[in-house]
Amino acid sequence: MNQYMQIAVNEAKKGMQSGAGGPFGAVIVCDGQIIAQGHNEVIETNDPTAHAEIVVIRKAAAKLGRFDLSDCEIYSSCQPCPMCFAAIHWAKMKKLYYACTKEDARNIGFDDDFIYDVIKGKAAREQVASVQIDRNQSLEPFEIWQDMAKKVQY
Amino acid sequence: MNQYMQIAVNEAKKGMQSGAGGPFGAVIVCDGQIIAQGHNEVIETNDPTAHAEIVVIRKAAAKLGRFDLSDCEIYSSCQPCPMCFAAIHWAKMKKLYYACTKEDARNIGFDDDFIYDVIKGKAAREQVASVQIDRNQSLEPFEIWQDMAKKVQY
Repeated sequence: MNQYMQIAVNEAKKGMQSGAGGPFGAVIVCDGQIIAQGHNEVIETNDPTAHAEIVVIRKAAAKLGRFDLSDCEIYSSCQPCPMCFAAIHWAKMKKLYYACTKEDARNIGFDDDFIYDVIKGKAAREQVASVQIDRNQSLEPFEIWQDMAKKVQY
Repeated sequence: MNQYMQIAVNEAKKGMQSGAGGPFGAVIVCDGQIIAQGHNEVIETNDPTAHAEIVVIRKAAAKLGRFDLSDCEIYSSCQPCPMCFAAIHWAKMKKLYYACTKEDARNIGFDDDFIYDVIKGKAAREQVASVQIDRNQSLEPFEIWQDMAKKVQY
């Protein structure tokens, strides 16, 4: 078994057994060195975004002092949900290894199909009603950004 | 203009002008009370997940001491990216108000189509190579979770 995946799976067990959250762990590796490891902390922290992958991305970025993790790879004990999958893209990572599938997660009560279905335009029912308002009155920050000479485009 | 959206737009300006991040702000409201307001902090914190919506979801959940924000509504100065859109679902919110569109964001250099396209299965090129490994050796945490008597299913 892959050594980093073994650590991700151990994190999943540890996090669940300590009551931190669901049975999910992740590891971020750069040049063969573990930069961050962690597990789901949704229950312990009351943070609905504290999935294992988000936890390790935040830890790795803090440790390396940069939001660009393009030289890092992520190992997740389970196929990421859309939030985490998108976060891996924003961190500019190029490689994701995962073990259990979204179907495995669904079988133990963690179903993210309702989110994938909405994004794909296939949902029979949408949890979130999205309403657009006030676009014309809200464009000013974008216009200021466009004209800013000194900015970090990320 | 909606009063909460006005605050979200002011946050977008404030965050950009202080160098915290891109021109994006958000507000979470519960029963007519503002629970959290904030802006993108990607640059200031080096956290690639610190989009405005994630920032305010984390703040609101911490303030209310719960990960279930189903009685809250979110106002975002811009249409959320897939990460934030999924996070709004995990927070169990039922209503999203947004102002600028993803096309407006793309026009100033913030393009999330490459993530939406991958999720929709429409991408010509994928930034992240996803590889499944070690499923059989990684199912144990899920089996333990399934058998746990005392757990918080979220």
